[in-house]
Amino acid sequence: MLYIIGLGLYDEKDISVRGMEALKNCQKAYAEFYTNAFHGKLENLRGEIKILSREDVEGKAAFIKEAKNKDVAFLVPGDPMAATTHVDILLRAKKLGVETRIIHSSSVFSAIGETGLQIYKFGKTTSVVFPEKNYFPQTPYDVLKENLNAGLHTLLLLDVKADEERYMSVGDGIGILLEIEKKRKENVFTEETMCIGAARLGGGSAIKYARAKDLADFDFGPPPHAIVVPGKLHFVEEEFLDYLK
Amino acid sequence: MLYIIGLGLYDEKDISVRGMEALKNCQKAYAEFYTNAFHGKLENLRGEIKILSREDVEGKAAFIKEAKNKDVAFLVPGDPMAATTHVDILLRAKKLGVETRIIHSSSVFSAIGETGLQIYKFGKTTSVVFPEKNYFPQTPYDVLKENLNAGLHTLLLLDVKADEERYMSVGDGIGILLEIEKKRKENVFTEETMCIGAARLGGGSAIKYARAKDLADFDFGPPPHAIVVPGKLHFVEEEFLDYLK
Repeated sequence: MLYIIGLGLYDEKDISVRGMEALKNCQKAYAEFYTNAFHGKLENLRGEIKILSREDVEGKAAFIKEAKNKDVAFLVPGDPMAATTHVDILLRAKKLGVETRIIHSSSVFSAIGETGLQIYKFGKTTSVVFPEKNYFPQTPYDVLKENLNAGLHTLLLLDVKADEERYMSVGDGIGILLEIEKKRKENVFTEETMCIGAARLGGGSAIKYARAKDLADFDFGPPPHAIVVPGKLHFVEEEFLDYLK
Repeated sequence: MLYIIGLGLYDEKDISVRGMEALKNCQKAYAEFYTNAFHGKLENLRGEIKILSREDVEGKAAFIKEAKNKDVAFLVPGDPMAATTHVDILLRAKKLGVETRIIHSSSVFSAIGETGLQIYKFGKTTSVVFPEKNYFPQTPYDVLKENLNAGLHTLLLLDVKADEERYMSVGDGIGILLEIEKKRKENVFTEETMCIGAARLGGGSAIKYARAKDLADFDFGPPPHAIVVPGKLHFVEEEFLDYLK
């Protein structure tokens, strides 16, 4: 059996009791941290946990085959099925006839409710990625535009390149969105856009609501960071946001 | 300090280690189960936990004031901030100057990834409620229509009236959606619509992908249930769904 176990939002204490029990009973344990940051101490969970690189996970993935005859734990940051890589692992296990069990944990997709915005009023989620030479996708701008037109809130996830220890900050993300605005000039995300910066949800969070240009200068501390641009606000949401100014 | 602690998706083992620790250290502990089902044994968590009714929570909420001088735990199903009632608790605590700490847990909003559909491709979430005399809202139909037009997946949460022990099943939900289709005739949700029924995510889940009319007859077992109507499918999503047929 392959147990895909979520480590949750922040450190080793965010794993569920169910996940902890499964982890202890497994004969082998692996973990990956290239899809997101992990701020905990793995050694507090159990003695031997082998950390897998992106190549280990997306290449031959020997640990999946190993789970045919052994109980194998695969630890991942956040909730297991929020990253497409993990869905792929599950799919490959199904193809190999390896039994699987998913043990969920906390994730930014629900924790973002800490902003006081109603979860069910969020539209499509989008990611802001580090621009590279000849690669500057405007997707977050398009998604934001569509959501705003529909009155919906937008969660903007910020790029994580854990292997290079590069984690996009709220300030970086705002800078990139303003760059796209300069090119597009459709008035979707300007220096005056009221938005929320959120850092370390569930782990001593920092959340602030302000104009983009003011948020960009605010020090949110260590990653992970995220940005939310609210859509149409219910008066209770508005009242809540007043406390985050 | 008021600790609002998520119990997670299914039973008492879905609480995080962090939540468990906080709960043990609190002088008083309360819980509510009117916002969702809880299938666990509360007594496995700690000795004294007082269960609050909807009136207790939404009325005077004495436990908030109590947290001014004591460490008080308030246990809630799922993730704390996914229900608007809990956002309201947080807001009232802020107004009273009571310090708060949110401890997240697993939630349907990320666990729905168990369907293999990419979380960030979901549009607005909607709820299907039990119709009452003179009350038959068509909101889920409108939300579904908009999401489908944008190529997005739709999570349809199904009504929970925990105090009356009424939990909407996948079959009930499909019946209600087909009723609305009969009135609206816009071809948004028909007997032929391919959709996913999901039950007990994270707790021995049952997930099935089929035409609405076939899903309606399938026995998903105990609650909670949810329905997903996929939007435009990526080929990996399609491949995954083949395993859920």
